[in-house]
Amino acid sequence: MAQQGGRNPAKGKQKEFVKEITPQAVDFSQWYIDVVLKTEMMDYAPVKGCMAIRPYGYAIWEKIQELLGGRIKETGHQNAYFPLFIPRGLLEKEAEHVEGFAPEVALVTRGGGEKLSEPLVVRPTSEAIICDFYSRWIQSWRDLPLLINQWCNVVRWEKVTRPFLRTSEFLWQEGHTCHRTEEEAEEETLKMLHVYRDFLEQEMAIPVITGRKTEREKFAGALRTYTVEGLMRDGRALQAGTSHNLGQHFARVFDITFLDQDDELKYVWQTSWGVSTRLIGALIMVHGDDRGLVLPPRIAPIQAVIVPILTKKAREKVLEAARSLAGALRQGGIRLELDDREGYSPGWKFNEWEMKGVPLRIELGPRDLAAEQVVVVRRDSGEKMTLSQAELPGRLPLLLEELQGDLLRRAEQYREEHTRNGDDYAEFLKVMERERGFFVASWCGREECELKAKEESKATIRCIPFDREPEHEHCLICGEKAVEVVYFARAY
Amino acid sequence: MAQQGGRNPAKGKQKEFVKEITPQAVDFSQWYIDVVLKTEMMDYAPVKGCMAIRPYGYAIWEKIQELLGGRIKETGHQNAYFPLFIPRGLLEKEAEHVEGFAPEVALVTRGGGEKLSEPLVVRPTSEAIICDFYSRWIQSWRDLPLLINQWCNVVRWEKVTRPFLRTSEFLWQEGHTCHRTEEEAEEETLKMLHVYRDFLEQEMAIPVITGRKTEREKFAGALRTYTVEGLMRDGRALQAGTSHNLGQHFARVFDITFLDQDDELKYVWQTSWGVSTRLIGALIMVHGDDRGLVLPPRIAPIQAVIVPILTKKAREKVLEAARSLAGALRQGGIRLELDDREGYSPGWKFNEWEMKGVPLRIELGPRDLAAEQVVVVRRDSGEKMTLSQAELPGRLPLLLEELQGDLLRRAEQYREEHTRNGDDYAEFLKVMERERGFFVASWCGREECELKAKEESKATIRCIPFDREPEHEHCLICGEKAVEVVYFARAY
Repeated sequence: MAQQGGRNPAKGKQKEFVKEITPQAVDFSQWYIDVVLKTEMMDYAPVKGCMAIRPYGYAIWEKIQELLGGRIKETGHQNAYFPLFIPRGLLEKEAEHVEGFAPEVALVTRGGGEKLSEPLVVRPTSEAIICDFYSRWIQSWRDLPLLINQWCNVVRWEKVTRPFLRTSEFLWQEGHTCHRTEEEAEEETLKMLHVYRDFLEQEMAIPVITGRKTEREKFAGALRTYTVEGLMRDGRALQAGTSHNLGQHFARVFDITFLDQDDELKYVWQTSWGVSTRLIGALIMVHGDDRGLVLPPRIAPIQAVIVPILTKKAREKVLEAARSLAGALRQGGIRLELDDREGYSPGWKFNEWEMKGVPLRIELGPRDLAAEQVVVVRRDSGEKMTLSQAELPGRLPLLLEELQGDLLRRAEQYREEHTRNGDDYAEFLKVMERERGFFVASWCGREECELKAKEESKATIRCIPFDREPEHEHCLICGEKAVEVVYFARAY
Repeated sequence: MAQQGGRNPAKGKQKEFVKEITPQAVDFSQWYIDVVLKTEMMDYAPVKGCMAIRPYGYAIWEKIQELLGGRIKETGHQNAYFPLFIPRGLLEKEAEHVEGFAPEVALVTRGGGEKLSEPLVVRPTSEAIICDFYSRWIQSWRDLPLLINQWCNVVRWEKVTRPFLRTSEFLWQEGHTCHRTEEEAEEETLKMLHVYRDFLEQEMAIPVITGRKTEREKFAGALRTYTVEGLMRDGRALQAGTSHNLGQHFARVFDITFLDQDDELKYVWQTSWGVSTRLIGALIMVHGDDRGLVLPPRIAPIQAVIVPILTKKAREKVLEAARSLAGALRQGGIRLELDDREGYSPGWKFNEWEMKGVPLRIELGPRDLAAEQVVVVRRDSGEKMTLSQAELPGRLPLLLEELQGDLLRRAEQYREEHTRNGDDYAEFLKVMERERGFFVASWCGREECELKAKEESKATIRCIPFDREPEHEHCLICGEKAVEVVYFARAY
């Protein structure tokens, strides 16, 4: 991997490794910024709120595309690509939709040196432009279901931005499907929510709460929005993905009809669902610690790094053994880096790879060579193991899986420890101010109470979980009869 | 695969398959438009010059990403993502660059409801924005070479557009590298040109001429531009990819310097190189025929289709055998479709899959079942083979490779038959007017002659091939002493 940035010594002399990362407990936000900049995941663009995703960050996005993209295809969806530009009139067709997105659009008003007769919106999401196509592509029940997904960039003009979590331009996937019946659309909406959940838990080791958004929090134009919500290590929740049952709202406005088997012309039922590069932010904030990133092996661009300990005398022998070991491990499917750079001490390299969150470090020095062993160090726990070189190719995949499982359990445990349940509004306010985390409460279902809680606690209803009866008789906020269980949290 | 569009019968009754494709000989342009629309590769967008790439077209782009992307990584490049928006001032820094691109940019002038203080250019290419980052990322010789590639969308406001070949928005990859020396940059520029050539010939079965562009035709801001040029079946050339040695033009303007091992501060040497979705247009125009697409197996989303011949009596048995065969072929790595749709006759299906260019069709009916055989039909030649079911999984990969090779040879032969060589200017004008193709000529090297030839023949110098001495003493156009061999052609 090419080394970039100012941390490298210019002339072969090694600079001391300075661990300039702000501790989480001192300032979590600054810790996050330090991590994304110093691990070279991103850099700020000259345009406010935009960023470049550098190779180390983009490699994680590529793993997400591979692992989530595979699941999206396995569930029968095909990829396609729709235009970046949406005529303003198209976006304005669906009233709720435009109300939700109009304040944050970027407008192209000039093209090829001339003023455009109608400004073009740079897509903030693609429902409007895709529905325009679907209205022509769909004619008969035979054309359904139509299951299409798109990986692309979108633009939402944001006032306050933060790398990966909220940027004016970001990358995402957006699925857009059409169905014959309401039931099929609802089934698809929930199926994709569970694809997200499975992907997040299995590959990213991020446990999530699933549920429905309140009317206030749902997607602009949707009938119902479902969400997967993770809990970051500063106690704030993060919406990691959403899946919308669009009902027939867009079909009616964009005239997407089909001739059904009973010879009647009907509107289709639609869904849309998406996750974005903000998942990279979640990954950082769920697993990272004061030394930097901690990456779950299945999503890590580099799963293990060999750092040879080179002395003058044994230099060539150690390097040779390291190369041979690297070959064997790569052949076994491990994404492995051999750090044979000159001019950096082993200690410097240890620090750098720790900061970059590589799950396992393999140390190999002259003494290890003599004993035909290596020292393996886990990034998450710091645990050191001495393993024979012969058994390493067999053991490493198991160690990685173990580490993956431990990260998920550790995150689940954190979430459990930071999930309160109660019906005391004063306590709720205190928790949201101090420890944060999730607060599970009962709610009367009225927006009035939802808003009051938000104003007073800065916490929002993250979701209404599936199939749970209120545990308390009364609404946390107003004391009236409770009808729903809800998860409250301050959120990103 | 979900069936879309108006060609499908709405009520289970089969419409006759109408082969509505204009013959190539009648109107090649219309043939092309018929093919891309009727095979559902694309559809026109409500914004002029833009399009949607439908799943069947996008699946080809995904194969290109996989096969070319693999080669780009194997040669040591990492993927990253840079911002869509470039502040206008940045684009204007390099004088030649802005002159080349300014006339065709789209400008964002409003964001979040407010007028922007500086308009933003929607990237037409990313040199300017990437150089801005590189000037911060590169400090020492240790940071070099910096080898980064990006897959993204770009926008160039075009007056005359054609699906895939020239659209206002298109998808591409753009590599951007920095090096210590001029020699290294030149080596990289040529390496990537050969990666393109290898990819085009091996995977897309498109033979190309490689060479250097003239000063007039080079990239705006480059020192030298190299190109791969294919020949379409209407005798017009198509620039399929370019690789630019940028010299130090951008480094000086954007101040990209590094401290070299000799302790001196130096400007880096840069390259950039790209191919786009126009490759899909080339694929169509090199291999297609009057029945539609002909796809080379390595790039085909579907390599073989099984069409079961279903009679009332043997229906279940034939379907069962087809499914079992499909399973065996898929297990062998074949991208296979089993067309068991109801309500369409086998003949209708044959026509549709032929139009879609699927390399091999496998017919399986009751009589084949009894004889434990299948009929295999090649899309390119129409050749029919009877093969035993048992040998099919072993034979099919070989048949596909054979077909792949035949397509390349057929395209090479077409190109040879349409490449003239001469020093008679009148004959040159006649050839460019009638048969077109390549015309290999000798040239004095003066832009004056290049321009005269262009005005009078509508042909441009496509490239100056590598390592060839002029075969004629005199320049084709002016009769003065010739110094270069050049390929002329009318081009897309």
